[in-house]
Amino acid sequence: MIASTPQPPYYAVIFTNMRTDSDQGYAAMAKSMIELASQQQGYLGHESAREKTGITVSYWKSLDAIKNWKQQTDHLIAQKYGREKWYSSYKTRIALVEQDYGFGL
Amino acid sequence: MIASTPQPPYYAVIFTNMRTDSDQGYAAMAKSMIELASQQQGYLGHESAREKTGITVSYWKSLDAIKNWKQQTDHLIAQKYGREKWYSSYKTRIALVEQDYGFGL
Repeated sequence: MIASTPQPPYYAVIFTNMRTDSDQGYAAMAKSMIELASQQQGYLGHESAREKTGITVSYWKSLDAIKNWKQQTDHLIAQKYGREKWYSSYKTRIALVEQDYGFGL
Repeated sequence: MIASTPQPPYYAVIFTNMRTDSDQGYAAMAKSMIELASQQQGYLGHESAREKTGITVSYWKSLDAIKNWKQQTDHLIAQKYGREKWYSSYKTRIALVEQDYGFGL
């Protein structure tokens, strides 16, 4: 799904990752983190796709909202497990969306 | 693959899309556009994944580099076919990457 976001400016967190072979609890945790993120103040939506590379882009009202989500207790545990078990590598990019346009939305 | 990008700031173009059922020439065009993009001045890398939703994030040195790529002749043709045949909807977001960090890279 394409996230329905407000007029720019707003923030995007681009999380690109490569998985390990370990599936222990991954699907349940990923689902739970999306539910939890969507309850955070300042959350605007997200988009996700995976082939060999996984990309999740989440959208936020402000840098403060992103900072609060990064420090959220259950999310901190998920991040720890992510580094220990599920991801062989990842990169997180925090970006200010300045312009957007679409087709067929 | 996770794109190897320089220290921020740099730009990201987040292209999120839903496909039609029409495959006519899509794979060849997608491959050709990635090759062509990588030859443009100011191109820094890209990441791509598709499930039901497709997400391609390309990285660029400047807004000018993005503008030039958007107006590149063969790319204009691909954009036209995209709207006519391959995409039922898409959203393009242009964003300034302010911070990034990684793991296992």
